[in-house]
Formats: sequence, structure tokens, C-alpha cells
Amino acid sequence: MKLQLATWPEVEAYLKTSTAILIPIGSTEQHGPTGFVGTDALCPEILAEGVAAQTGALVAPTVSVGMAQHHLGFPGSITLRPTTLIALLQDWINSLTRHGFDRFFFLNGHGGNIATVQAAFSEVYAEASLGAAPSNRPALRCKLRNWFEVPGVQRLSKELFGGADGQHATASEVSLTYYGYPEAGARAARGAAGMSPKVAPSGPFTDAADYRRSFPDGRMGSDPTLASAEKGRQLFEAAVQELSAEWRSFAEAG
Amino acid sequence: MKLQLATWPEVEAYLKTSTAILIPIGSTEQHGPTGFVGTDALCPEILAEGVAAQTGALVAPTVSVGMAQHHLGFPGSITLRPTTLIALLQDWINSLTRHGFDRFFFLNGHGGNIATVQAAFSEVYAEASLGAAPSNRPALRCKLRNWFEVPGVQRLSKELFGGADGQHATASEVSLTYYGYPEAGARAARGAAGMSPKVAPSGPFTDAADYRRSFPDGRMGSDPTLASAEKGRQLFEAAVQELSAEWRSFAEAG
Amino acid sequence: MKLQLATWPEVEAYLKTSTAILIPIGSTEQHGPTGFVGTDALCPEILAEGVAAQTGALVAPTVSVGMAQHHLGFPGSITLRPTTLIALLQDWINSLTRHGFDRFFFLNGHGGNIATVQAAFSEVYAEASLGAAPSNRPALRCKLRNWFEVPGVQRLSKELFGGADGQHATASEVSLTYYGYPEAGARAARGAAGMSPKVAPSGPFTDAADYRRSFPDGRMGSDPTLASAEKGRQLFEAAVQELSAEWRSFAEAG
Amino acid sequence: MKLQLATWPEVEAYLKTSTAILIPIGSTEQHGPTGFVGTDALCPEILAEGVAAQTGALVAPTVSVGMAQHHLGFPGSITLRPTTLIALLQDWINSLTRHGFDRFFFLNGHGGNIATVQAAFSEVYAEASLGAAPSNRPALRCKLRNWFEVPGVQRLSKELFGGADGQHATASEVSLTYYGYPEAGARAARGAAGMSPKVAPSGPFTDAADYRRSFPDGRMGSDPTLASAEKGRQLFEAAVQELSAEWRSFAEAG
Amino acid sequence: MKLQLATWPEVEAYLKTSTAILIPIGSTEQHGPTGFVGTDALCPEILAEGVAAQTGALVAPTVSVGMAQHHLGFPGSITLRPTTLIALLQDWINSLTRHGFDRFFFLNGHGGNIATVQAAFSEVYAEASLGAAPSNRPALRCKLRNWFEVPGVQRLSKELFGGADGQHATASEVSLTYYGYPEAGARAARGAAGMSPKVAPSGPFTDAADYRRSFPDGRMGSDPTLASAEKGRQLFEAAVQELSAEWRSFAEAG
Amino acid sequence: MKLQLATWPEVEAYLKTSTAILIPIGSTEQHGPTGFVGTDALCPEILAEGVAAQTGALVAPTVSVGMAQHHLGFPGSITLRPTTLIALLQDWINSLTRHGFDRFFFLNGHGGNIATVQAAFSEVYAEASLGAAPSNRPALRCKLRNWFEVPGVQRLSKELFGGADGQHATASEVSLTYYGYPEAGARAARGAAGMSPKVAPSGPFTDAADYRRSFPDGRMGSDPTLASAEKGRQLFEAAVQELSAEWRSFAEAG
Repeated sequence: MKLQLATWPEVEAYLKTSTAILIPIGSTEQHGPTGFVGTDALCPEILAEGVAAQTGALVAPTVSVGMAQHHLGFPGSITLRPTTLIALLQDWINSLTRHGFDRFFFLNGHGGNIATVQAAFSEVYAEASLGAAPSNRPALRCKLRNWFEVPGVQRLSKELFGGADGQHATASEVSLTYYGYPEAGARAARGAAGMSPKVAPSGPFTDAADYRRSFPDGRMGSDPTLASAEKGRQLFEAAVQELSAEWRSFAEAG
Repeated sequence: MKLQLATWPEVEAYLKTSTAILIPIGSTEQHGPTGFVGTDALCPEILAEGVAAQTGALVAPTVSVGMAQHHLGFPGSITLRPTTLIALLQDWINSLTRHGFDRFFFLNGHGGNIATVQAAFSEVYAEASLGAAPSNRPALRCKLRNWFEVPGVQRLSKELFGGADGQHATASEVSLTYYGYPEAGARAARGAAGMSPKVAPSGPFTDAADYRRSFPDGRMGSDPTLASAEKGRQLFEAAVQELSAEWRSFAEAG
Repeated sequence: MKLQLATWPEVEAYLKTSTAILIPIGSTEQHGPTGFVGTDALCPEILAEGVAAQTGALVAPTVSVGMAQHHLGFPGSITLRPTTLIALLQDWINSLTRHGFDRFFFLNGHGGNIATVQAAFSEVYAEASLGAAPSNRPALRCKLRNWFEVPGVQRLSKELFGGADGQHATASEVSLTYYGYPEAGARAARGAAGMSPKVAPSGPFTDAADYRRSFPDGRMGSDPTLASAEKGRQLFEAAVQELSAEWRSFAEAG
Repeated sequence: MKLQLATWPEVEAYLKTSTAILIPIGSTEQHGPTGFVGTDALCPEILAEGVAAQTGALVAPTVSVGMAQHHLGFPGSITLRPTTLIALLQDWINSLTRHGFDRFFFLNGHGGNIATVQAAFSEVYAEASLGAAPSNRPALRCKLRNWFEVPGVQRLSKELFGGADGQHATASEVSLTYYGYPEAGARAARGAAGMSPKVAPSGPFTDAADYRRSFPDGRMGSDPTLASAEKGRQLFEAAVQELSAEWRSFAEAG
Repeated sequence: MKLQLATWPEVEAYLKTSTAILIPIGSTEQHGPTGFVGTDALCPEILAEGVAAQTGALVAPTVSVGMAQHHLGFPGSITLRPTTLIALLQDWINSLTRHGFDRFFFLNGHGGNIATVQAAFSEVYAEASLGAAPSNRPALRCKLRNWFEVPGVQRLSKELFGGADGQHATASEVSLTYYGYPEAGARAARGAAGMSPKVAPSGPFTDAADYRRSFPDGRMGSDPTLASAEKGRQLFEAAVQELSAEWRSFAEAG
Repeated sequence: MKLQLATWPEVEAYLKTSTAILIPIGSTEQHGPTGFVGTDALCPEILAEGVAAQTGALVAPTVSVGMAQHHLGFPGSITLRPTTLIALLQDWINSLTRHGFDRFFFLNGHGGNIATVQAAFSEVYAEASLGAAPSNRPALRCKLRNWFEVPGVQRLSKELFGGADGQHATASEVSLTYYGYPEAGARAARGAAGMSPKVAPSGPFTDAADYRRSFPDGRMGSDPTLASAEKGRQLFEAAVQELSAEWRSFAEAG
């Protein structure tokens, strides 16, 4: 069930069966010449819908904009400062705890979010540890799960793309979004014309200027011309199966 | 064009034709026994898609969670503190200015956002006025437009619902979301059973406990049983027509 | 009774009769060639004294500096960033609640404060709604009232100034301050020499540079040469009468 | 000249002669059974008017609420958290620098403000030292001057009150406010009935509960029954004379 | 060279040869019945001294208190909230950039710091990416290196402790601090009496209450009775050798 | 006992005998041509060790970086913004209160910290006064003690250095650090070559540029060539004796 499409009495009913919620979190940032700016938000959103279909999980709206400062050299990228993202997550979690939610499963589509989201968890836990948590707040359990690190996904990515999946604008994530948005994918795929080199360079980066200098078309280590909606479908199925099991285990654990 | 489904070179191309962006902003909060928790976010999202279809506007991801502290007494509601929402909007705007965007049209679905969004605009303008704006930032123009205040919408709402449109969980907004999500709407509409009184009470409120006390099923002044997908379609068309003209005027003004 | 001129045992005695407090809030910003920089703070301060004389209301010190970023292009203007003003109001309110005050009537003299003050109310209410309010804090009721929107004031302004009252450095507010400070008013009125056009232009604005460009002498839509201390007296009487009734209703409501 | 009663062209003219501004800063907090809650704000306000009369100094509105957390055990006291006061002072100073002001003479009436105001100065200087100051900001000079530490005031206080001037709700400050507000002073002085012991105890304190426990009627080390408007007049004259010289020296120094 | 024991002309001279600085960062938190509360700060401090001896690196003072909210259930533990630690690191880095430092090698002793330190790096980079960095700030390179993940250390730990090194209060880190502080180590080692089970449990945790419940004596997965100063010496040598090479590579890279 | 070298059961045992903790706080900033950058942190650290040896006080890790914005014109200086230092001290204190500590004796080595540390105390006390303190937090007592203002130290400084002790990079503090670090002191003392004038100038300062302009080699009013390890030893003994008595009195007071 999508929270946005539920009524409050339906949420109240859900809370009698589960106090866990599934929150897709991503980013709005360039994904190379053929990837959607919304790739990192769309991937967990698509997968969350799949998980919900299998498990009945309640799915929160997607945190569409995350920590993407290093992509600001490319048009369309939006970032939250880490401290803003921490405040946002604090507010989401502290709001939901008022209703009885106490397990937060963040399904993440963006490597750049990981550190800040975990810092946000610590900020929220610290409220309890320092004795400053909102009154009556239950003990909370927060989990961050990167869909691209699910074992079945990694196996399949390797099988489908070999060493050309890459680190950013990966063939896998581009495939998954093409599967979710085939028409837009067909249009975006035309951006491949003139893309060079075939596999993008890899390496470290710091700020937006540095990133753009090192990765002139935005990709890192990937050849997204290998992407296709059909491969996206396969990745979707592999991911949803494992993530559904992980969700159940998280939501039901003692 | 949806920013999330665009590639960065497509955004770069768009910027050669326009430096304006359309940002739907709403809330995730109870909307009575038959309204979606996401009503206030879905309405501007649906309308923005309509406006984009007519005008070619670039549509940012929706700010789905806004200022909804007074609804926290009902399950599923999420709020940002005003100061968090201000920080978020600062980051969005300051990110987009790096690419050359300088006109921000926020299409708003939630009355509770108005004050904070305008305060956020002032916070952003103050950066320039105090000499602290990011270097090279262009002069910005920010606009907040509440879709439910568009004259054609107000005329039609009155015609369709008379005095029973209300202030929260209005027949209009519920209709618009049912139009956008007919299947979920049919399901949600079943929540009308036992809804009483027919037209909800109105009046002032302060915090969440006070709101719930005064408005026990969440509605304010409305009879959302009057809502229908078909009426939503009519509202959609009325709104999109006028908003498209407003967008053009905003995006093109000298 | 002015809080500043009361002793704490007198405040303690007042609290046995009322838990409401009247807080004038304004701004320190240019008001055209003939208006005081303090106009927006002085107006509610003058009126609050009048209301207190009629009702016995306790009057807090004036919040003299508000949100005036758009006036920073003119010497003497001071602004708080919206987030600073929110923090300030939080502290004032949370301090006063320690003594038992739970009704806060902000008498406002500045349109530019409205959004931020209402955002501040939400920030304060959100503390309760999120379970983070100071312990023992009573349920609060905050009200923002713009003196220039009191019906009797608007009627009289129209009668006195027709369409030339304007939006900033209005004939009404300049009159009210000349009534309060006749000597300084006589001096300031000399600034009218060479003021042109007679009625200032109107329109939208963004930051300080934009404001100064559009409104070169600071006025918006007004002809403050129509102002006089005598007209100020009439406005004072009209405003105090209605505001006193509003105060009583607010302070005594169940 | 009072900034609040000046027009912006008058401020512009002033800036051609001086870039210094005099800012009274105080507190709104209990001052014992016979002292005004506004004592610490009124004293520097009264004195600033005297200094301006002698020197032509431009006087900003008074910062009426300061750091008074330890007085919150007594009705009517209001505090800003130190971090809020720092933000407020940053905004005032950064606003005024936009117009060319670069010397800020804070005339202080409250011991509890000293640390925070000096921390605020460091916060503002740090903007420059860290390279983060608003662009074009001139080099600033900020000065905090406690009126009660002016040598002539201290000599006179000792002469008038001997060892009974005290540390809080002092006979000196109460006298000065009675001089400024003789009618209210006459009323407040009646609070002396039953005040005991004659000279209040002294000693350290921490938070509001601790303060109230140690100083049950709010006074520290003082016997404010010695206060009178006439003594206030003498203190006024002594203070204004020396402060005027200090202002001139500060405003004109190379 | 230790920054604390250098004079500023010596730092100035150093900057002519290198713009890199080595910053030990740790935590002040319980480390089981036999480990020092300062273990995580002392380890990188000890190693940094070793690296400096080999390479001439300039070593900043140690960030002794980090993100340790989960250890607050045990006496002596101190945490910074993640947002505080981010602000602290921003200030350190922005201070040092004023002198020309542009490479920051954080040698970390505490797993709980990783997310927050990386978020802090992003916050600092974001200043540049958003155009808000202090003027003249050079392009920065920040690196976080966990000493316990150096390959040579991991090999040796496995060799020395097999599977009983653990995740918290590890035999390795306890050994290293015993090597650095043999006398205190001998005293602390007496805490082993009654420690049970021999190897502590492992698993996830959230806040301080949860941590203490799961790990009643503070250890996670470790048997620190295996620790000794001699093993610490071996670990020291292995770590310093590799870290020195890493430092050189970082400090000299083009 | 140093907290860093204690185990948590040892801290637990300490808490049964005392709830006071001794926290050295200093700065990392230039101290002239012959003084260590760490002087202000090292002095209280050295003295705290002496006090602990005499009294058994528990000594926290040193706050090594304080408020030093005015020294940023000299290589090696690091500052926290005052607001950052306030947040840091809040976190330290609120962490330690969880274990039962309620008396905080900050032994300070840096004049520039005084205002901000006292503001931080107020911020912490204000949490209690405003009703927002962490639940169960005991009543706290915070004390700031500048070692250089201990009467015995001041007497001895005068005796040893006459009027040439100065205000910054004083002969006293340099001596104390040379006593603590004789080898490094011998090296640093070589910086005296060419130091001129013999006694540095004195006077006010604002930001870093202003400070460097007025005090070109960093010293203020001092002749640190008079410093020696032997004089440092005398100062150490004088200071430790009195500080030990002060500690006992603070830790044991009812």
C-alpha cells in the first residue's frame, strides 16, 4: 500500500498489523548522457512498489532529493546539504513515531546518501541516548538497504554487464528505470550517440568541479549503452524477491 | 518534461530555451476518511503534468512532505518543521541556480505550506540582500501559486459543491486525486460509510491535539462524499488551462 | 500595563486574571522620504498602548526588528533572517509559557513579517505535535493581527486617502506615527520636497536590489504627503476600539 | 537621532558624517519587588538618548530581550538562548554594514548579556577571518560597554548607596529607571512593603530554579529601597557625560 | 611534527614543503572492562606520531570526542551529535585552508565516526559545489582512513587473535593502547577478572539502551584478554609502515 | 585519573565518590615566534594532570581547539565558531550527565574562550530553565577557571617577568609549556632570533586581519624570551597547589 494513496483510517488499520514502513530514498542528479536525472529515486520507488505487491508493506513517499553535491556540475542535479538531509530524516521519523511506527526500512538508490543517512540515524538515536527524544517515543530500529548491493542483483549485473556495470550511471540502474519508464527510456537512450569512451573512467572525486573534470559526461566506470528495459525487468525480479524477504524479516523480527 | 525522466543534456538544452522550473509542492497528511494521505502532493503533481503537456515546462520532483504539524494526530501524517522546510527549499533553489535556473514556480497543494514557503523565499532573497548569496547567483524570482485559488477552479468548485467544498479534505481536491488515481479513489471512497456530520465543522486550530479535538475525522468544512473522478477531470481541465497561462507569463516575463 | 514597567509581583498578580499577553511586532526599515524607519514597529506599539489603556492588557516589549530583507537597499533598514525571527519568537513564547502565559496576541505592523511569524507559530506548535515541547507547557494559542487590516481602519483609510494609501510607506501608517511623534513627524514631513511621482508605483519585488530598482524612493503605491497627525489620531481611535474588542475576545475565549 | 524616528534620507545624510551607531541592549527580566521587568533595557535606552542629545549619535532600537535564562523562575522574564541572541546580533550587524556602518557601540544594561554579546562579536569577526563574510563587508569594530561600569557611575553609586547597591536589581539601576519613568516608579516603589532582608543575599547561581532558590525575591546584594528618581538623575548625568566622551572617541578613532 | 608543539613560523616553513595535514580522530567511549575509554582516540594518536616520525607529516591535535551515542549507557562515554561533529570538522578544515592547507588525512580509530565524517566532507565540498565556500578557498581533498582496516593490520590481527579480535574493544586496539600506555594498561588489564563470556556477543544495535542490553559489558565480538603491549608493538609497526606509505602517496599526489 | 586511560568500570567506581569532572580547555593558535601553537591547550592539560595527582580528580580529554578567530592570520591556528563551540560543550555536558556527573570544572588556558564558554553554560542552563533539558538531568554546576588568573600565578608571574609577561604568548604560558615539553621548548626558543621589539605592543583587536596588522609576530605585550622551563616549573607548582584547593572546594561543596 502506498501511503500517499491510503486514507488515515487505512493507515490506522495497517498499524494494527505492522509498525514498519518502507521508505524509498534516492537522489536527483545527472546519470550520464542516457540516464534519467531521477534514476536513483526511481529505482527504489519501482522496487518498493514490487516489494509492497508481494508483502503488503506500507510505502512512504520517496525522498527524491538526497546528497548529490558532487553532481552539481551537471544541469538538473539538486542536492541537500548533509545537515539538511539529517534534519529532514529526523522530522520524517519523529513524525511517524507519533503514530506508532518504530521500524524504518530505507530502500536506497544512491551511494552518495549512505553516509548522511547513517549519520541521520545516529542523530535520531542520539536523541534517545542523550535523553532528549520526544516523550513517549518508542525504541526505534532504522535500516538502510542499497538495492544495488542485494546479492541477487550483483550476481545478475555481473552476468548481464560483466565489468561494464560501473559505479555511476550504471547499466543496471539505467536498465531498471527503462523497465519502469520504457517510453522515456527509449527517448533517453538516444543520448548514446557519440558517447565516448565506451566504458567511462573510474576514480575518486571531491566536489562538483572536480567530479566534472574527471568524468566529463557524468558516467563513472559504466557502459550504459548495455542497458535495456528487458534487463531491467530481470533485475527488478531478482531484487524484489530478495528485498521482500529482507523486508519481512525486518518487519517481523522480535 | 519531467526532470526525473530527463537526461542532463536534455536539461542543458532546455536551459537554452527557458530558465524557469515548475516545482509541485504538497504535503503528506490525513485528508479525512475518504481522502488520500498524499492528496496535497498529488494534486499539484497531476496539474504540473498537465501544464507541462501544454507548455513544455520542466517539472521538478514533487516536494511531497511539507508543513503539516497540525495533522500529526492522525496516522500517516508527516511534517517538516518550518525551519527544515526552509533549509530544504534553500538547497533546492541554490542547487538549481548553479545551472542557470532563476525562476521558480512552486505549484502548491497545501494551505499549511504557504507561510513557510514564503518565509523560505525571503530566506533565499535575504542571502542576496545581505551579500551572502553564493557567488555568481543570478537574480531570482520565486512564485508560490496555490492551485485551489485559481479563479476558474474556485468558480467550478462552487458550482460543483456549493458551500460544501470546505477547507480541508475538500471535495475539489479529493475529486482531483480520484481523477488521477481512479482505482485507489474507488477504494478510498468506501471510507464514507458512517461519516458524520455530512459537512464537517470549521474553525481555527493550533497544534495536533487541538486539531484532532476540533475535527475528529480530519475534515474541515467539507463534504468529500460529493467528490468524483469526473468532477476531478473538470477541475483538472479548468486548472491546467489557467495555470498554463500563468506559467507562460511567469517564464517569459522580462 | 507595560511589561517593561511592571514588577514581577505585578506580573504574577496579572496572571491570576489573565494568561494572555499582547506583543507588538514590527520592523526597522525605510518608509520613503517622509516616513520613519521605525514606522512598522511604532504603529503597533502606539496602538498596543491604546488597547492596554482600554482593556488592561499586559503589553510585552516590541519586537522592533523583523523580516525586512527587501528594504536593505535603503540606509537604516535592518532585517532578521526568517530563521532568526523564528528562533526569537520560539524563545519569547517558550519563556512566557514558563510563567503560565498561553495566549499570544501579536499585533503586527509589517506585511513582510506575516509569513515568518506564522511559520514561527507552526514551529512552536510543532514542538507539541512532535512531542518535543518543554515539559509542562500548556496548550498555546497564538494569533497574528495586522492593525492595517482591521475593518474600521481600512474604511477610514479609504475615506481619508482614497486610492493613494498604498502598500508601503502608506499615508495611514505615516499618519499614525506622526500622531504618536508629532515633533519628529513635522521634521520628517519636510522630506516630501521633490518627492515624485505623487503616487508611487506598485508591483512585485524579490530582493533588496530588485526592490530599490522598482521603487526608487522606497514607497509603494502611496502618497504619504497626505499624511497628518490629525488623521493619525482618527486612525488610532478607530483601530484601538476594534482591537480592544478583539483582544478581549481572544483573551477571554473558552 | 533615533533611527526609528529618522527617514532613510536622513540616515543617508548621517552616514556621510559618521559610520558609527549606538545600540542599547538590555533584558526583560525580573528586578526584584520594586524594579521594572524592563530595567536592563530601559537604562541603556535612557542613557543612549542622553548621549545622542550631546553627540548627535544615531541610536538604533533597543535590543530589549537578552540572555536571562536564570530569571525565568520569576513571572515576566523572557530569555533568548545564547545561540538565538548571537544570530540576532549577526543579522543586525550584517544588515547595517550594507549601508556603510562599520562601528557598533553596544550600550549594555545587563551583566547576563556580556558573554553572549562578546561571543556574537567573535561570530561576526569569524565570518571575516574564515573568509565567509558577506561580500564588500567593511572591516568592523564592535564594542560592548556596560553603563554600570563607567567610572563616574561607580563612584556615584558607592557614594549614594555604599555597599547596598548590589549586583541585581541594584539601587542604581532602579533609580535610573525611576528617573526615566517617575510615575511608574512611584507605583513600583510600593513593592518595598515587606521586602526582607533589607540587603539581599549574594552568591553564585546556575539555572532558573537555582536562582530562585537562592534569591527568593529576585534581588542580589541590593537594597533598592534606597533608589529614587533624583538619584537616578544624578546617575544619568554622570553616565551621559562619560559615555558621550567614549562614544566620540569610538566614533572618531582612526 | 606535532602542530601543538610547533611555532607558527615552523608551520609556515612546513607549508612551503607540503599542504597536507594528518588529523587523528577518535572517540571517548567505553571499551569493555579492560579497555581505555580513550582507546579510539589514542590509537590514531599513537600511530600518527609513528607516521610523523617516518615521514615528517604535520600532525594536528586529536579530535578526541566523536560520534558515540550508542555507548552512552556506559559511564565515561561522551558523544557529539552528528551535526555537531560536522560543524566542528567544517571549522577545522575551513580554518586550515586559510593557511594554505588543502589535503586533510583523517586517521580514524572509531567505526562510529565513519558515516558522520564522510557526511562532513560532503558538507565541506558542498560549500564549493553550491558556490558558498569561503573566498579564495583552494580545491580540497579530504581522506578518511581507518587504521584498523589497513591490510597489514588485518593480517596481523587475524594471526594474533584469530576470530576473537571482534568489533568493539577489540584485542588489537586494546593491545595498541597498552603498547602506548603500558603502565595504565597493566592496571586496566585487571578488569578481566570475571569477564564472561570469553568472546563477547556480536550483532546490530541502535541507541544506547539497546546497545547496553545486547552487550552488557561493552565488548562486541572480542576477547580483549588476548591483548598485550607486545602485540600492540607489532601492530604499531605494521600499521605505521603502511600508513606512512599511504600518507606519502596522499600528500604528494598530483 | 585520566578519563582516556580509565575503563568504564573505573569511571563507575569514581562516580560513587564524586560527580565532578575536570575538563582542560584551550586553543590551537599561534603563540608568537617561540611559543607552541598548542600553548593554550597544553597549559591546562599539564596543570590538570598536576591537580589530578594531588586530588584524584577525573580529567576529561582536553578541548584542544577553541575560539581563536583572531589568530587565523597566522599559520597553524584553528578556530571553532562560537556557535560550534557552544554545541560541542552542550554535547559533552549532556553526555556526561547521563552517567551522573553534575559538576563541570573547566580549566581554561585561553582568554578568547571565556565569553563563548560562559555563553555555552547559559545555553545548557537555559535547557533546564526553559523546561527543555533532557529528562532526568540533574541540576548542574559549571565553572570556568582561567589558570593564568590564579592569585599565586599572578604574583609569581609579576615577580618573574615584571611588566613583560604580556597578554598573548606570555612569558608565563610559554614557560609552563617549556616545563612540560622541555625538548620541544629548546627547539622553539630558537625562534627568538630577530624577535623585535623586545616587548610586543598591546591594544585592542577585532578580526584576523586586524590582529595580524597590529601584532605582526603574534605576541601581545609580552617578552617570551624571558621564558624558561625552570620558571615553568615554579608556575606549575604555584598553580597546582591553588587549583587543587579550588577543585576540592568545587567538587565537595554542598
